[in-house]
Amino acid sequence: MNTPIEFYFDFTSPYAYLASTRIDQLAAELDRTVDWRPILLGPIFKQTGSTPLVEMPLKGTYALHDLVRTARIFDIAYRQPDPFPVPTVKAARAMLWIKQALGSEKASEFAQRTFHAYFVRQKNISELQVVLDVAGSLDIDPARLARAIEQEDIKNALRSEIADAMARGVFGAPFLFVDGEPFWGFDRYDHIRKWIRIRAAPSPKP
Amino acid sequence: MNTPIEFYFDFTSPYAYLASTRIDQLAAELDRTVDWRPILLGPIFKQTGSTPLVEMPLKGTYALHDLVRTARIFDIAYRQPDPFPVPTVKAARAMLWIKQALGSEKASEFAQRTFHAYFVRQKNISELQVVLDVAGSLDIDPARLARAIEQEDIKNALRSEIADAMARGVFGAPFLFVDGEPFWGFDRYDHIRKWIRIRAAPSPKP
Repeated sequence: MNTPIEFYFDFTSPYAYLASTRIDQLAAELDRTVDWRPILLGPIFKQTGSTPLVEMPLKGTYALHDLVRTARIFDIAYRQPDPFPVPTVKAARAMLWIKQALGSEKASEFAQRTFHAYFVRQKNISELQVVLDVAGSLDIDPARLARAIEQEDIKNALRSEIADAMARGVFGAPFLFVDGEPFWGFDRYDHIRKWIRIRAAPSPKP
Repeated sequence: MNTPIEFYFDFTSPYAYLASTRIDQLAAELDRTVDWRPILLGPIFKQTGSTPLVEMPLKGTYALHDLVRTARIFDIAYRQPDPFPVPTVKAARAMLWIKQALGSEKASEFAQRTFHAYFVRQKNISELQVVLDVAGSLDIDPARLARAIEQEDIKNALRSEIADAMARGVFGAPFLFVDGEPFWGFDRYDHIRKWIRIRAAPSPKP
């Protein structure tokens, strides 16, 4: 049995959103499942001294252009959200709780609908009500979820996920592990496919 | 007649090196020539507040791994240089002078051999003698070149190229323009191919 693809993301990362729309297809090609792992880039950037993409001079302007172009190239629905970026702690905690309480399948559906709410339907996913509405669309009890994400165990679970991700070298999103091998970015999907094919082959001459 | 692909690079950028080994092939596919444009990332990073890739926590470690893997995936010879990164002002000025005095073809050959000297043959291209040796291998008079790169007009030409690049939004390397459209990174070569095919098509629904 192949190991699952570990898919780390922050719900406010546009490249993670793009990647999320194609991760099931990639996993199917590689005969694997996907372990969706929400994290927060804020605490990671704080420790690595990085800044959100769009705040970087020149690179931010380019990224906004590249995102729209990449979405068009891959035929992915995309509308630049406003406000952007937004805090995603509620959505991330909600997803972790759904994963624990209701299972991975429900959790990945929640993740896909949350991304869609933000990057297509222009909903502000930093708001509790928006998170609860997305959950409600999957027949998850909003009141139960609202209580759950304020519990210490869920708060600690998210902190632990973020610390664990950093310890494994995660510094951005999307960030994937395939059999422990790290890949950063939607633009590495083709590398993953090629790497899977060649890794058993002998190394080329230097 | 199609416009040339403008290929901005710094000789010490590993991703630019990887891209340089496939730029002629890309250009041939698109029925274009390549305008090789050496710049220095140092002054650009100073203005944008960026830091060299390998100095970034976590990202630097990942990049060194990703480079070797990418080279292997694309079957490109690559040996991580040491020292790295190095100042490339002499190589960049030399290339600009060769371009002006001896033409674009000689200049692009010089660029490819300089990249190869650093990323395959482990030569320190920050040293004048190494730059002159590469030029000598192309039957360029080393003494004439050594004098030329100390002239004010070549120094100013490089400064002007860098300022011009920044004014166009260049913040890293490799950085390409195809009919004015900006693409950053070797991993955008496939995007360039797809963008060329779809840009005449009507936009998809949002």
